[in-house]
Amino acid sequence: MDIVSEARAHGGIQGVYRHASAATGTAMTFSAFVPAHEPGERLPVLWFLSGLTCTHANVTDKGEYRAAAAEHRVIVVAPDTSPRGEGVADDPAWDMGQGAGFYVDATEAPWAPHFRMWSYVTDELPALIAAQFPADMDRQGITGHSMGGHGALTVALRHPGRFHSVSALAPIVAPGQVPWGVKALGGYLGPDRARWRAHDAVALIEDGARVPELLVDQGEADAFLPEQLRPELLRDACAAAGIPLTLRMQPGYDHGYLFVSTFLADHVAWHAERMHRPRERP
Amino acid sequence: MDIVSEARAHGGIQGVYRHASAATGTAMTFSAFVPAHEPGERLPVLWFLSGLTCTHANVTDKGEYRAAAAEHRVIVVAPDTSPRGEGVADDPAWDMGQGAGFYVDATEAPWAPHFRMWSYVTDELPALIAAQFPADMDRQGITGHSMGGHGALTVALRHPGRFHSVSALAPIVAPGQVPWGVKALGGYLGPDRARWRAHDAVALIEDGARVPELLVDQGEADAFLPEQLRPELLRDACAAAGIPLTLRMQPGYDHGYLFVSTFLADHVAWHAERMHRPRERP
Repeated sequence: MDIVSEARAHGGIQGVYRHASAATGTAMTFSAFVPAHEPGERLPVLWFLSGLTCTHANVTDKGEYRAAAAEHRVIVVAPDTSPRGEGVADDPAWDMGQGAGFYVDATEAPWAPHFRMWSYVTDELPALIAAQFPADMDRQGITGHSMGGHGALTVALRHPGRFHSVSALAPIVAPGQVPWGVKALGGYLGPDRARWRAHDAVALIEDGARVPELLVDQGEADAFLPEQLRPELLRDACAAAGIPLTLRMQPGYDHGYLFVSTFLADHVAWHAERMHRPRERP
Repeated sequence: MDIVSEARAHGGIQGVYRHASAATGTAMTFSAFVPAHEPGERLPVLWFLSGLTCTHANVTDKGEYRAAAAEHRVIVVAPDTSPRGEGVADDPAWDMGQGAGFYVDATEAPWAPHFRMWSYVTDELPALIAAQFPADMDRQGITGHSMGGHGALTVALRHPGRFHSVSALAPIVAPGQVPWGVKALGGYLGPDRARWRAHDAVALIEDGARVPELLVDQGEADAFLPEQLRPELLRDACAAAGIPLTLRMQPGYDHGYLFVSTFLADHVAWHAERMHRPRERP
């Protein structure tokens, strides 16, 4: 693992790191903020998965999460959204290919060789974080924005017991029912819609997957709300499944980072409260 | 004045605006954050002047000031650092020309026609802010980073009574004595060093200019500290002049925006406390 940059921030260290990924077969870059801590102390980890067109840098630069992470003593890790570089397939559209990995392991050409973000964010990168950072992997939370909200929800729903807490900002909740998701899941996983259900939060809940509770913020002025995001589908699925969902519709907010940065510190605090308390084991 | 973008953030509006500047003879872009407020209410204004290579966008994206500005009900305005565009002189170096206006009115070729940032930030832009925003121009504060800290200090020292509060983050305090300043003031104002003193905070204090008090944060791991920033010169000048200076040396912090974003919210609160209280008139 190479250090791209490290700098003091809010009493801790904001770093950017690069490593050779076995999952994607490429170099991958991620950021990690580690608050000040005692020697030997291990801190809870909050994962932030980013949205379409983003790298680790968008939330790292513009997310305004460090003050809250330092206050609540939480490591925040922000992966990239896809493999990148020469030899990696791409698409001219911004909602497919590089910058748009959708947190799946692609099975279809030309994506299958490198687009393995599911394995990367659920397996390879957690192992690296556990080995290289003062992280307590028994206390993890996960959140994300837009496509990254989709990632956070699906990763948590398919790893029961791994996360103390799950939230999302303006997530894609039902990719199998909206244009972004139909294009991406069709492209990466092929036309058999039954295979998409493992990467669709609403479908996963319908099929029996559960999380203890969910927090979602959604801007009411978000241009993608009615066609791509459709939080009412998550609301209905959670109601039918008995999952407590706190869905906060935020008047006037759009889909951008000024929305994310307004509410992310509150999500950090919400996760920290859950990650710092003993988990109820089933 | 054209709206480049406006979005809800922390309950207020973060905007970016462009207008034709008479001072610079170019289009100029700036950002303004306006917190939520009552109809007809006017809020104090905190100016943030940016450093070398920056535009309005650096602090707007990475400054982490909006939560504090919203809490303390302060408008934050961030101008650009120079005129830009075709027909505007430039220099291949990053510390001269476009992105490096040094907050002076240039008198020398090729800079004089457009590099009039002093007039822009002290006269033209304040008039625009007063006319177009819910700003109480009787309650202003000013701060800045690096070259912008130089700007904040010199603007405040030469406008006694205009500002309730003055602070800086890693400022250039004595441009006449450091390489960045010698190059820039020599280039923009010519070789007569006597003329530089009106744009040198330490020289202005030596020559009798005063502010009620100063707050300065400076990272101890800042690579520019010993040669370009030299806060000890400001400390000595303030001591000799009887200006109360709070100089906070911050262990481990470098010169970048992770330093700025760690301390800017605290500066906002410090300014707000002073801007919201009645000013003692001399």
